[in-house]
Amino acid sequence: MSAIARRGLMLVLSSPSGAGKSTLSRKLLQVDSNVAMSVSATTRPKRRNEVDGQDYFFVSPEKFAGMLREDAFLEHATVFGNQYGTPKAPVEAALSAGRDVLFDIDWQGTQQLSQSAKDDLVRVFILPPSKLELERRLHTRAEDSEEVVAGRMAKANDEISHWAEYDYIILNEDIDQAEKHLYSILAAERLKRQRQTGLVDFVKILTGGLI
Amino acid sequence: MSAIARRGLMLVLSSPSGAGKSTLSRKLLQVDSNVAMSVSATTRPKRRNEVDGQDYFFVSPEKFAGMLREDAFLEHATVFGNQYGTPKAPVEAALSAGRDVLFDIDWQGTQQLSQSAKDDLVRVFILPPSKLELERRLHTRAEDSEEVVAGRMAKANDEISHWAEYDYIILNEDIDQAEKHLYSILAAERLKRQRQTGLVDFVKILTGGLI
Repeated sequence: MSAIARRGLMLVLSSPSGAGKSTLSRKLLQVDSNVAMSVSATTRPKRRNEVDGQDYFFVSPEKFAGMLREDAFLEHATVFGNQYGTPKAPVEAALSAGRDVLFDIDWQGTQQLSQSAKDDLVRVFILPPSKLELERRLHTRAEDSEEVVAGRMAKANDEISHWAEYDYIILNEDIDQAEKHLYSILAAERLKRQRQTGLVDFVKILTGGLI
Repeated sequence: MSAIARRGLMLVLSSPSGAGKSTLSRKLLQVDSNVAMSVSATTRPKRRNEVDGQDYFFVSPEKFAGMLREDAFLEHATVFGNQYGTPKAPVEAALSAGRDVLFDIDWQGTQQLSQSAKDDLVRVFILPPSKLELERRLHTRAEDSEEVVAGRMAKANDEISHWAEYDYIILNEDIDQAEKHLYSILAAERLKRQRQTGLVDFVKILTGGLI
């Protein structure tokens, strides 16, 4: 990577269940040390194996309500009575330092981020390669009832129905190929003029201050 | 590459003289058979070693004037009394067939293309890595006079002054790295949702027509 200072970006990965999003996220975090997973705040109790500030920022409902009032979240949602939200401050600190932040979120979170983040956002949607493959991946256990699978399919279709709200679409036919696609997107987005904030000064030096 | 039908893109490369644009163009055309160089129409006489329809479309001044009247050019310019222009029709035919078209043009051509092409355009500007290196590359021959070099430098600075009109900036410190950057940009841009025109039908089949 060049020595030109740059602003980090927010990489959003969304997909229906089983399309490979988690695998791709994990691989990306392994190979690229400049990318960190976004850490959410939540009001749900910490589980034994979880680490505060790593898995989540565990906060009280009062604290969460206060943060909401201060508009301190990039996006937030309530799931099964627990509140979840992405605090703005650590994300902004990372972006300012030229680090990229990965978000593994659904279409609703992405819609909220699209309101609050705009130019920093790179939205990637991952699609399974075929209907047959999607169905196969949703039948995770042989004993799943028809209803359970139908419910998963409805949820997958709901997620897929928002594909056109994303900037890039990766068809995951082959995980290695999908991985390469994701790295290309990240590499290209880092080369976007607006993100290379150090170029203004670099060009001044390059042209001897003439432009 | 996936089997999803896509619309091609127009890849514009600009740079000051000696920044590596020609080398990058040539390598890209060698490694990626889906990319073809744009062919301009010109009123200048054909040289012995040139092939009509390959190096240029050689046309009469009357023919060129007629094409201008019909708004048949994406961009055009007059250089040393000869007219040059990029005909729209072959570019549109390539894009519709999912092929990408490479343009090795300056900031003026890019500005014109930006008016006529918009969403199909991917504009890449290549910068030399330092002032010293830029100067070194502009001193192509030992016998060049101060004036000749100063003239080249002024031309280079004029070109560089338009760097902020491009979508991506590649700093060419190392030609192999610059090449990789260019391929990443191309790979990523091909994954843009709007270019993958076949996705609309694919998603219908994927969801069994439910969305």
